Amino acid sequence: MKLLRYGPPGQEKPGILQGDQRYDVSTFGEDYNEAFFENDGLERLAEFVAANAGNLPVVAASERLGPPVARPSKILCIGLNYSDHAREMNLAAPTEPVLFMKSTTALVGPFDDIIIPKNSVKTDWEVELAVVIGKRASYVAEADAANYIAGYMLHNDVSEREFQMERGGTWTKGKGCDTFAPMGPFLATPDEMGDVNNLRLWLTVNGQTMQDGNTANLIFNVPFIISYVSQFMTLLPGDVISTGTPAGVGSGFKPPVYLKPGDVVELGIDNLGSSRQVLKAYQA
Amino acid sequence: MKLLRYGPPGQEKPGILQGDQRYDVSTFGEDYNEAFFENDGLERLAEFVAANAGNLPVVAASERLGPPVARPSKILCIGLNYSDHAREMNLAAPTEPVLFMKSTTALVGPFDDIIIPKNSVKTDWEVELAVVIGKRASYVAEADAANYIAGYMLHNDVSEREFQMERGGTWTKGKGCDTFAPMGPFLATPDEMGDVNNLRLWLTVNGQTMQDGNTANLIFNVPFIISYVSQFMTLLPGDVISTGTPAGVGSGFKPPVYLKPGDVVELGIDNLGSSRQVLKAYQA
Repeated sequence: MKLLRYGPPGQEKPGILQGDQRYDVSTFGEDYNEAFFENDGLERLAEFVAANAGNLPVVAASERLGPPVARPSKILCIGLNYSDHAREMNLAAPTEPVLFMKSTTALVGPFDDIIIPKNSVKTDWEVELAVVIGKRASYVAEADAANYIAGYMLHNDVSEREFQMERGGTWTKGKGCDTFAPMGPFLATPDEMGDVNNLRLWLTVNGQTMQDGNTANLIFNVPFIISYVSQFMTLLPGDVISTGTPAGVGSGFKPPVYLKPGDVVELGIDNLGSSRQVLKAYQA
Repeated sequence: MKLLRYGPPGQEKPGILQGDQRYDVSTFGEDYNEAFFENDGLERLAEFVAANAGNLPVVAASERLGPPVARPSKILCIGLNYSDHAREMNLAAPTEPVLFMKSTTALVGPFDDIIIPKNSVKTDWEVELAVVIGKRASYVAEADAANYIAGYMLHNDVSEREFQMERGGTWTKGKGCDTFAPMGPFLATPDEMGDVNNLRLWLTVNGQTMQDGNTANLIFNVPFIISYVSQFMTLLPGDVISTGTPAGVGSGFKPPVYLKPGDVVELGIDNLGSSRQVLKAYQA
């Protein structure tokens, strides 16, 4: 099953994707939020879709897509989880996962604009595989981790490198700016994904390929990450963990390359579709 | 006005504190959440309380207190914001605020237990003044910041120093563990606070004073912090910013002192009451 949300920001309605066609499931009566995932929403939605096959309204292709999940309690990210990316950042490959948080206010739809913050000079891109948590997870064993996965999404972990690296403290300032977390176009349940450890992920800027990696090169894979993070805090249904980016970010180029107004970023992951964002300067 | 929430975890009802007496305001019909603060909830609640003076049900003193606000979109914290604390951590006083995030799953009531995580050996305390945001804040000028404050709360920014400092990456692992954010007993609106730049804050462990500071020694004060953070991300109504801790944390002692099961932490800030947590070992 592939879940999407469509409509104006903050007023998204639930939908599903079948083939290339989007269908509205508003009459199911629930948003894709913590309560939905916690109360077996995926199973109930699948039953609803089966029972209403052929009768679901089509969503116009012109409708904006929102993020595939409602605002989660937290967006966690794994840093430096591809060894080629750690090298380009001049950082050692980590011996255990590097963890940071992204403000949930950064969450936007897959085709929304990315707003370059006021005073930003180093806005950068990062294509990532994001995992959505399906049920409350605390001290989960790696062997059990698959039971805690609701699905997967494409995520552009947009990052301001000066805010992240040169302004003191943790990475929070450069990771959580508004619009810095375009997610989607859809959430795919695990049965739609094939081998999660063998997915190509790519990103272009103005048509030029910048990132072209494969999840086969993840240092820490998804079950390990879920188990690991759950040792430090409880993951709630609907929470998002983004698993890190492969080589090819702007700050890794010599000299570095950063995004400017008018630039177009496109990205994709096998079985998770593609997204596209246009860069805009902040305007009050 | 002083706002509190009482009842079992996850089922808290809204109340107010007048003198030493707690009153139930369930019939006001709203929790103290993002929508409440966004829609002038404080003003409407004040009118409700005035209109129902003398008729509000008393809340029994035996009732558990929850955190004074519902789960916010984010808990942001300022690190090393008292120069004496920066010194004891062997870190330079910052030239601009150090920012980090705390998982909102850490939020608990002011008299709830603190659970020492599995495998924790360095669980530590931090008394802090926390600010609650009253309306959506983006690129706020310091001179305007007061207009964005809903109120203040007492916060114990519990921290696991090994997870925070010795496990790679940012401070996320050591700051967001479950139960690591006891807040309350109440939210006080600014008119209840007196001079926010001259509040004593203190913390004891098993009756022994560990921290005894004053917000007069904040490196960055509240209006500056709100303005500063709002340059990096939008603050939502109900969001919490904790402003840092003075000297006297366990990891600053030589040799360091950490919390163990059975320890009792008590803390307080002028005009914000006091809280008390008992340490417990994690049990599955």
